Amino acid sequence: MNTWFTELQTQAVSLGLKVSRVLWHEQTPYQELAVLDTVPFGRMLVLDGAIQTTIQDEFVYHEMITHVPLTLHPQPRKVAVIGGGDGGAIREILKHPSVEEAHLIEIDEKVVEASKRFLPEISEALDDERAHVHFTDGIRWVQEARDFDLIIVDSTDPVGPAEGLFVPEFYRSIYDALSENGIMVAQSESPFLQPHIIQRVMTGVSQSFPVTRLYLAAIPTYPSGLWSFTLGSKETLGTPRSVSFPTRYWTPEIQRSCFALPRFVEDLIR
Amino acid sequence: MNTWFTELQTQAVSLGLKVSRVLWHEQTPYQELAVLDTVPFGRMLVLDGAIQTTIQDEFVYHEMITHVPLTLHPQPRKVAVIGGGDGGAIREILKHPSVEEAHLIEIDEKVVEASKRFLPEISEALDDERAHVHFTDGIRWVQEARDFDLIIVDSTDPVGPAEGLFVPEFYRSIYDALSENGIMVAQSESPFLQPHIIQRVMTGVSQSFPVTRLYLAAIPTYPSGLWSFTLGSKETLGTPRSVSFPTRYWTPEIQRSCFALPRFVEDLIR
Repeated sequence: MNTWFTELQTQAVSLGLKVSRVLWHEQTPYQELAVLDTVPFGRMLVLDGAIQTTIQDEFVYHEMITHVPLTLHPQPRKVAVIGGGDGGAIREILKHPSVEEAHLIEIDEKVVEASKRFLPEISEALDDERAHVHFTDGIRWVQEARDFDLIIVDSTDPVGPAEGLFVPEFYRSIYDALSENGIMVAQSESPFLQPHIIQRVMTGVSQSFPVTRLYLAAIPTYPSGLWSFTLGSKETLGTPRSVSFPTRYWTPEIQRSCFALPRFVEDLIR
Repeated sequence: MNTWFTELQTQAVSLGLKVSRVLWHEQTPYQELAVLDTVPFGRMLVLDGAIQTTIQDEFVYHEMITHVPLTLHPQPRKVAVIGGGDGGAIREILKHPSVEEAHLIEIDEKVVEASKRFLPEISEALDDERAHVHFTDGIRWVQEARDFDLIIVDSTDPVGPAEGLFVPEFYRSIYDALSENGIMVAQSESPFLQPHIIQRVMTGVSQSFPVTRLYLAAIPTYPSGLWSFTLGSKETLGTPRSVSFPTRYWTPEIQRSCFALPRFVEDLIR
């Protein structure tokens, strides 16, 4: 059968993926959730019509949102992920031997439930004894959190449940929840299609963090294929450490080169 | 009116762009040619259903296929582009003051005609006195060519008229057409969606050139958004020069970092 899933990435750009099977579809208290098997990218999680992760390209996003900040921290022990209910970021974080606790703060229990059932390759680490899952509002949770070495904002787009994760007050709460040399990273959308969101996140993060950097990675199922991450650090960033496990996207050279921005992106955040 | 152009990037992946106007549509002796105004990326040239260039993102491809090799050559004087009838590569090449001649070898006169008529921002440099346009078969042309400092293969996908531009014999002819420290670059498709083409081009180029390197750039309207270029050089590559004109994608840091490959791409060409 010739069935396609189509994401309206903007009002005028769409990405279509051929689908072999729709496995799950529900309205949760927070959003519309679906799991589909696609022909080109394997199994896929969709929230409110937007592709969150696919088996074939999830490695890019999950490696780049975790290893870039983790290798810049001298000894990350306590890490939190706000959002990211599929568990992919937690899986990568727990590959770092210094990490003692990895907390997942996901508002929508159904995302974790569906990921555990349909995407075990991505969610498996949520059962690790160092992983702690909290089904609560990330904005409230972070106000009580303290002494984290790294906090990752692995959010959906800034509409619906994730709207409050893109405001300066939230980044200030993250700052307060971090230890002395703590680092934060937030996914900040595409420089080609959502330049205003990058500007908003960079401005917001720089209001609290003395060091703010943008970096990029190539993710084919996300709008435009080029994705940005905004990093905030309390201290000057040192030389990144290497890692002792295999990766599929990250390399020591990618760690350096992901901060090299095309001129139009430099101009965007100047 | 809700009109969309859809490119089947593979049999299972499609990119859709909202269209405001279809300006031109013809069957040339070589291919189907269309020019459309799109809402997200402005005016667009399409050949055999595949997006070739758009006003909004053409700068990435044209800067990266030209400035990366040009800044690696000590003094490029004589340059050729095989394919690339829109003229965008010639426009960027002629920004380098050392260049005395820029030859365009395009098999399909209709591509140049449509680009001059509908895409003057891209094709304007074809009227420069240093530009020489040859409407002929690139494979045959290159067999007679000599003493070029740089030859760029700015081809369509390896189906139809461009098939012969992806074989080792063609790269050998390019080698013979280059001066002693000459360089070639060929567009070599997406590491996510056409990995076998990258392998084919890298293998083919390395049969003639002692130095072969792959580099990447983010192009939103090309399949997966991540595009590769294969560079062959007769001599060891030195430190790149800088440029004296404004750019929108290329920077000295991008020049270095575009050669940093994600692990899965490194594995692909090992």
